[in-house]
Amino acid sequence: MTKVYVVGIGQTPVREHWDRSARDLAVSSVLEAIEQAGVEKADAIYVGNALSGEVAGQEHLAALVADFAGMAGTEAVRIEAAGASGAAAVRMGCLAVASGLQEVVIVTGVEKMSDLTGPAVEEALVTATDEEYEAIHGLSLVALNALLMRRYIYEHHVERSDFAHFSINAHKNASNNEYAMFRRPITVDAFVNARMIADPISLLDSAPVADGAASLVLCSEKVVGERANSAVEIVASAAATDAMALHDRGNPLFLQGVYESAQRAYAQAGIGPEDIDLFELHDAFTIMGALSLEGCGFASEGEGVRLGIDGEIALEGRIPISTMGGLKGRGHPVGATGVYQVVELVQQLRGEAGANQVDGRLGMAQSIGGSGATVVTHILKSP
Amino acid sequence: MTKVYVVGIGQTPVREHWDRSARDLAVSSVLEAIEQAGVEKADAIYVGNALSGEVAGQEHLAALVADFAGMAGTEAVRIEAAGASGAAAVRMGCLAVASGLQEVVIVTGVEKMSDLTGPAVEEALVTATDEEYEAIHGLSLVALNALLMRRYIYEHHVERSDFAHFSINAHKNASNNEYAMFRRPITVDAFVNARMIADPISLLDSAPVADGAASLVLCSEKVVGERANSAVEIVASAAATDAMALHDRGNPLFLQGVYESAQRAYAQAGIGPEDIDLFELHDAFTIMGALSLEGCGFASEGEGVRLGIDGEIALEGRIPISTMGGLKGRGHPVGATGVYQVVELVQQLRGEAGANQVDGRLGMAQSIGGSGATVVTHILKSP
Repeated sequence: MTKVYVVGIGQTPVREHWDRSARDLAVSSVLEAIEQAGVEKADAIYVGNALSGEVAGQEHLAALVADFAGMAGTEAVRIEAAGASGAAAVRMGCLAVASGLQEVVIVTGVEKMSDLTGPAVEEALVTATDEEYEAIHGLSLVALNALLMRRYIYEHHVERSDFAHFSINAHKNASNNEYAMFRRPITVDAFVNARMIADPISLLDSAPVADGAASLVLCSEKVVGERANSAVEIVASAAATDAMALHDRGNPLFLQGVYESAQRAYAQAGIGPEDIDLFELHDAFTIMGALSLEGCGFASEGEGVRLGIDGEIALEGRIPISTMGGLKGRGHPVGATGVYQVVELVQQLRGEAGANQVDGRLGMAQSIGGSGATVVTHILKSP
Repeated sequence: MTKVYVVGIGQTPVREHWDRSARDLAVSSVLEAIEQAGVEKADAIYVGNALSGEVAGQEHLAALVADFAGMAGTEAVRIEAAGASGAAAVRMGCLAVASGLQEVVIVTGVEKMSDLTGPAVEEALVTATDEEYEAIHGLSLVALNALLMRRYIYEHHVERSDFAHFSINAHKNASNNEYAMFRRPITVDAFVNARMIADPISLLDSAPVADGAASLVLCSEKVVGERANSAVEIVASAAATDAMALHDRGNPLFLQGVYESAQRAYAQAGIGPEDIDLFELHDAFTIMGALSLEGCGFASEGEGVRLGIDGEIALEGRIPISTMGGLKGRGHPVGATGVYQVVELVQQLRGEAGANQVDGRLGMAQSIGGSGATVVTHILKSP
């Protein structure tokens, strides 16, 4: 595709930000990104957000972010695809720059979840599923994932504890990321004994919803100019959908959207999974980690958990994942997560990942909306 | 800009569709549009929707629409910019085709409002304003428009009845549009005596929220091929924002977003307002009709209402508006409206507008989100 570069990143720590609003979080990440990029204005702002309407009664968030970032006037639009909202905003930013009609765009992902408590959190998250055929029966997002995990355990003859390594890896990596929410390592024992949420999914299978915002400044080849040598290039941007409801999929244990989205990205970049050096995947639940690895071709069906057991997902492994903590360790500010993933890839590919630095040239980020109905994949290349 | 063509349109009647869901409405308009376009698949589906989360607890609507339209797999994303959501989806579709990465895209606008009744309607609509500085004080969307209209009447020494002509024109034109919700003409007397909603805004100043879906198939020059001679071309696509809250604008009676958005569109098309033959504007309230005409350069400040009084907005006037009924007569399915406007322009520019046919070559459509914070403008050219 037409060349698109990342020339600035910004992020807030992922926390329960009781004293900050979505607009405040978004604006601070935007200002950080544009300062780093050395730009003063942009042609457009793409805001990924999933749940501001449910949480704060605030739709029309993109115009609000543009306004409070001091850019009233600038084109701004919100992009929503449930948990893939942030990644979908990155995708729109790429298309916009590729069009040649916009040279510099800001992509922001933001979510403020803390204002919801108790069952209201599940009620908000379940809007990502098919309301009339899933949610109405009481199937929450975690319950849908529990069905998948139960079936995976049965079909592939694995144990619940086999999934522990995804969470252990994520928490370990998060411990070195100052922006991450959970910075204490966990053990297999802690995982096995964790409080059950929706059997077989326990607290330590589940990424925490959280508050945060992350931003990117993307630009064209023309604008990047001589900085092309030091900028991270987005070499693939792809999205796919799948049947919305779990029961409408031929094989629920193979995420077709993950597969299609990854295949399209590989084709754009002219590479295969064997060329990817690190992978920020959508580990909202450990089962999603396993299914993502399989759908993207890093493991065959039923073998995704083996990559965890065998240490292949560690920083020094064959395919490092969740290198800055992933959704599980860094935290999962729903509609912001996809932008955090790309920000973290940029840190890695620029060699700014500190103790978690992976030696690699090509990084992939993939976000999943709902139980797999929207999947957005990006591949970035080091300078 | 890179050439983008409309090769298919579809729309449902705008009604209170008590027996149909948002997905059902969206899918039927998509199928109609792709049948007309003679395509079987698309590279992406852009779904404009404002309030499905609030109304039905259903976010992630784009994947759902793709799925139920028989296109699971196809890239799909929801675009939200309050009342300008549909137009913003058209804008994304244009950028996508202009990028060269997508050759055929479907743009759908859909809203199902009827499941909300009473104060819940206002609670949903007010999410388009600044929640922390406007809505929290009880300012609803109609109240914000009432403040604007009151100030306009005071500053420009006009009467409330001067606004009647916008609604009379809209209802008259709607009477010939089978897809319109209100098909009975109204009189000045009816307008003046209408029930007050938020003084000085009465029932007959206000467009009705409603249910409906409209779709477009857009394609590139390469795909349109020889059909270029019979297809409607989108010659300009532009968006702008303004301060979100009314109190943050220098001159609340001049919609800066309307001005910027229109100016950008004129620049792209290489024309000025004098070249526009018909204008589908955002007459959610009559005051918005007047302010839109002024911001777009069809009248100077304070003179927008004069175009109504002098008959210039009629089908045979200098700048026909709301030619198929506008928001007031056709109805205002919030996030779908921007796509309906473009569908109606296509009908006009193809010579398919029946009794309401305007003799014209260039048509403009403009959608407004909130009280003017997002404005999206398109200019289309007849074959």
